Amino acid sequence: MTTTDQGPAAPVAATALRPLGLRDVQLAGSFLGDLQATNATVSIPKGAEHLDEQWANFRNVAEGVKGADYHGPNYEDGEAYKWLEAVAWEAGRDADQSTDPRLAEWLQSRTALIAAAQDDDGYLGTFVQSGQRDERYGQLDFDHEIFNMGAMIQSAVAQYRATGRTELLDVARRAGDHLHRTFGIGPEQREGFCGHPVAELALVELYRATGEQRYLDQAKYFVDAHGRSILAPDHPGRAAYLSDRIPVRETTTPEGHAVRAIYLAAGATDVAIETGDTDLLAKLETQWQNMVGTKMYVNGGLGSRWDGESFGNPYELPNDIAYGETCAAVASVQWSWRLLLATGKARYADLIEWQLYNAVLPGVSLDRSKYFYVNALQVRADSDDADKRAPGNGRQPWFGTSCCPTNLMRTFAALQHYVATSNEDGVQLHQYAAGSIRAGELRLTVSTDYPVSGRIVITVDEGADTAISLRIPSWAAGAEVVVADGEAIPGMPGAYTTVRRAWQQGDRLVLTLPMSPRLLHGHPRVEGIRGSVAISRGPLLYAVEQADHTAPVDDLALTATTLSEIPAADGPPQVTGTGAAWQPSTGLYADEPAALGDALRITAVPYYQWGNRELGPMKVWLPLAT
Amino acid sequence: MTTTDQGPAAPVAATALRPLGLRDVQLAGSFLGDLQATNATVSIPKGAEHLDEQWANFRNVAEGVKGADYHGPNYEDGEAYKWLEAVAWEAGRDADQSTDPRLAEWLQSRTALIAAAQDDDGYLGTFVQSGQRDERYGQLDFDHEIFNMGAMIQSAVAQYRATGRTELLDVARRAGDHLHRTFGIGPEQREGFCGHPVAELALVELYRATGEQRYLDQAKYFVDAHGRSILAPDHPGRAAYLSDRIPVRETTTPEGHAVRAIYLAAGATDVAIETGDTDLLAKLETQWQNMVGTKMYVNGGLGSRWDGESFGNPYELPNDIAYGETCAAVASVQWSWRLLLATGKARYADLIEWQLYNAVLPGVSLDRSKYFYVNALQVRADSDDADKRAPGNGRQPWFGTSCCPTNLMRTFAALQHYVATSNEDGVQLHQYAAGSIRAGELRLTVSTDYPVSGRIVITVDEGADTAISLRIPSWAAGAEVVVADGEAIPGMPGAYTTVRRAWQQGDRLVLTLPMSPRLLHGHPRVEGIRGSVAISRGPLLYAVEQADHTAPVDDLALTATTLSEIPAADGPPQVTGTGAAWQPSTGLYADEPAALGDALRITAVPYYQWGNRELGPMKVWLPLAT
Repeated sequence: MTTTDQGPAAPVAATALRPLGLRDVQLAGSFLGDLQATNATVSIPKGAEHLDEQWANFRNVAEGVKGADYHGPNYEDGEAYKWLEAVAWEAGRDADQSTDPRLAEWLQSRTALIAAAQDDDGYLGTFVQSGQRDERYGQLDFDHEIFNMGAMIQSAVAQYRATGRTELLDVARRAGDHLHRTFGIGPEQREGFCGHPVAELALVELYRATGEQRYLDQAKYFVDAHGRSILAPDHPGRAAYLSDRIPVRETTTPEGHAVRAIYLAAGATDVAIETGDTDLLAKLETQWQNMVGTKMYVNGGLGSRWDGESFGNPYELPNDIAYGETCAAVASVQWSWRLLLATGKARYADLIEWQLYNAVLPGVSLDRSKYFYVNALQVRADSDDADKRAPGNGRQPWFGTSCCPTNLMRTFAALQHYVATSNEDGVQLHQYAAGSIRAGELRLTVSTDYPVSGRIVITVDEGADTAISLRIPSWAAGAEVVVADGEAIPGMPGAYTTVRRAWQQGDRLVLTLPMSPRLLHGHPRVEGIRGSVAISRGPLLYAVEQADHTAPVDDLALTATTLSEIPAADGPPQVTGTGAAWQPSTGLYADEPAALGDALRITAVPYYQWGNRELGPMKVWLPLAT
Repeated sequence: MTTTDQGPAAPVAATALRPLGLRDVQLAGSFLGDLQATNATVSIPKGAEHLDEQWANFRNVAEGVKGADYHGPNYEDGEAYKWLEAVAWEAGRDADQSTDPRLAEWLQSRTALIAAAQDDDGYLGTFVQSGQRDERYGQLDFDHEIFNMGAMIQSAVAQYRATGRTELLDVARRAGDHLHRTFGIGPEQREGFCGHPVAELALVELYRATGEQRYLDQAKYFVDAHGRSILAPDHPGRAAYLSDRIPVRETTTPEGHAVRAIYLAAGATDVAIETGDTDLLAKLETQWQNMVGTKMYVNGGLGSRWDGESFGNPYELPNDIAYGETCAAVASVQWSWRLLLATGKARYADLIEWQLYNAVLPGVSLDRSKYFYVNALQVRADSDDADKRAPGNGRQPWFGTSCCPTNLMRTFAALQHYVATSNEDGVQLHQYAAGSIRAGELRLTVSTDYPVSGRIVITVDEGADTAISLRIPSWAAGAEVVVADGEAIPGMPGAYTTVRRAWQQGDRLVLTLPMSPRLLHGHPRVEGIRGSVAISRGPLLYAVEQADHTAPVDDLALTATTLSEIPAADGPPQVTGTGAAWQPSTGLYADEPAALGDALRITAVPYYQWGNRELGPMKVWLPLAT
């Protein structure tokens, strides 16, 4: 048995960076701390209510009730487990678990239900167990049986690491053993894997939590089984959807269902880490580079297509019908985190920050009670989509497929975990948030209202002779680190600035990140953003909403590149500039180009805030007509 | 029994324009005539081969074979009927049906198979009859049972009109009677309609061919049954897909599955015509206007989304992932034809022409053997779509869902029918193609190589005292009609120029349409075409293909608005202009805008020709960077 007190993804093998313990970083107020606190007080309790019917499936299976109505689609076991994982991380943030008495009760009662529902041979899946199917694993492509067990295993590892309790981990071991006996290359085993990856990630974590090699072997088997069209012979489109068209080791760019593709890549990264497979790791880094370089929205959103919830071709990034599933951004954070640990490269922490603020956070309302499943970069007037996932319909209290809300909850409940790492050289700060950090002997307090301002003050509470490395975001040209005694060090964007010394209590490091609004220019191959600009400031992308304009947002263009800030009473400032609106034209295709009207003021708000006022048109990209 | 010798859609009620008889217009060589001829010599015979397995379903049902493999999806009966409709129109073009001896054999043998498969009560549908379902009409939303019978009825009416034979019409009557007994508002009838419209169109045509009022009543019932979420209660997205979210009479803009929506609108137009429902007709004209004004690609393509093969929101018209199903363009031609007959407005004939050349014709290869299902306006380098419908994979010999090839075949086989109409005032020429036209006493010969040149010479072979109206296309500013004796009349674009006189044999009318290349500017609300231009010439839209360029097509922009022509050995000229390519940039989002390289020559070919050379990137819209 390995140590508890770890967060999500805690490698056993040597890695460039090592995660700190689960309670080594504490967020205290400010932006990310407030997010974590409201996730605990609003989102998780509401999730408990929304998932009540789902737990009834477990109860019916445990009690042998026949003929009961089955609630939800066949993958909702998995979403319930994600919520329970969030409960575990939340319970584990305080060593004495005193935060909310309901947390312990939820963990205990749901764990008991899950354990009672598990079959003697380790199989667990209420959809099949309740008789919705005649046999197990009859439809590996779409029945999510292994997916569900994978999510349970993740939840169990979280509960073990966060609380030290092993009841669910025992269920997970039995499920893992069942999977290991059932699937693989042995004489009595069947070939196959789940159409929805996640077990790959989960089994590596189970290996890490238990030290049992067979779980790592099983994860490796599942990773390598992909890409031979086992699940969809003669259906290349469906094989792509299921990450089964091209073997992981031959994949140069992600394709198909975005969440599936990224979970698989993250699981493969875990396998590469634990098996020391540097060749596989290099392939995965290439895949990540091509994703970021040709298939990622400016907010970090992933998945261009509603059709198959999938990646598109390179440069296929329409703003209005972007899919950008919230879960894909969450999955990407998980992937980048593993690549960061494996390689120590700043680019991975950079993307984690950008996606947290601009692709993950927009998924939840400011009051933490409603969610976006789909994240577009433009909603036009007269949008009329019957599907409630469509962003034009606003955030929703819940979805029948509740992956996005529960994925957000488990991410925010463990948010502190992504802030810092350590290695033999010292401690690395990847994300900036008010709170405290403990790394070996060193204890630090971070004071900042980032991303409202770009001033981050790091105070040494207990010293050590070591290096402190600060990530300079790739957008932060002009960043500067000032050490206690006045020594100023320019920060190189997209790299770490490292200060090594015998730190004394009271020493201070002040990192100043330039926060002036900036314009991002779109790649000309991306048709919807060619000749257009997006406004950003610090780590935040901005959006233009109808609530701030009388002219139709659909018609707005920016006519000057000078931007200024409007301070907000609470939170990051708005950004404003000069623009104009295209005049109404008749017909879609005209002999003459459209004309712009009189100058007007354009106001942008942080993208994560959009859709929290009156619903209306929104867009991120503004045509630049100077 | 009404008269035979009619083409598709022959209203009984009074309409502004009356179709000519099926053999009143003959195409003779030149562009459209060659198209019709090669459709007959290549496409239709190859279709016979591709559909062999489909006819085996009918044989198995007719012979009572149990347990035979069922071939194809549940709607392939309908596609086989469409092919047989093409055979009928082709057989009917020559009064003596001497064109190809196989035509008569196909009509006879397939009709016999169909008749033998029909149940005694008139039901016909091999999917259910062969035991793929336990009951009829168990899944009205997706089982296509009424759709299939509708396509059979259309095929039967075609066979009757083209050849005078009534064997299949008798089958159609029995099927129509069965539908009339089964669905409706009577005490023993069930509520409902087919998730895929077409029976609405078909039953009106059956009414027209037989004079039986009940078929019109049934068509009207089916039209009015839509829009109350009968097929998809509590699933607004699915209801939209099935044209069941909003009643036809309340629909202001088409939504959902494009082909379904347009077939329904066309069927509703037929019902409005035959019932004299001017209010419904006005609603349908509004719907058409909003389709053309906010939801149509520049080539006339319809359907923005792969997801649900559906219309998008207004201005949601991405170039690269356009769906633009070939069938949607065919359906639109059918709808516009009905609106043209009902109203006499030039806009409908205008769209028919534009769609025939730029949305229908691109669906088939120049050698008439391969087909596009999906018609995008851009294919980029590195496109890699597993789905063989994706245009980047090139035209395909056939599809398991063969609606597009068979829809093209039946359209081209009756192409002459859309050329001209008549009414009490005279004859109206809507489309320009070499051939002959007979309207009452008047006989005309049309000589032209249009759309290679814009010169159309109309010679009177037999005179009459009547008016000849010539449609001036909406793009044809500067058009001129010169009458025999030198009188010159300026043509007004988007209207008809009418010349009334006592025409004598030998009189000539010369219509000259300006054919200089033109630039079309995109509406700024359509993100992918904002600031961009499309090249057109006469009725043809143009596209830029990699085969003509060394610089990547993906990066090309036009830098001057002067265009010139390069004559082609065969067919319309190429169009050329000056442009430049964006220089390679790193990353999707940059601090500086992209830079253009040195001037280079850009060459465009007619869009319908794209994909007939080496497959590679293609785009219709060129950013204008002057």
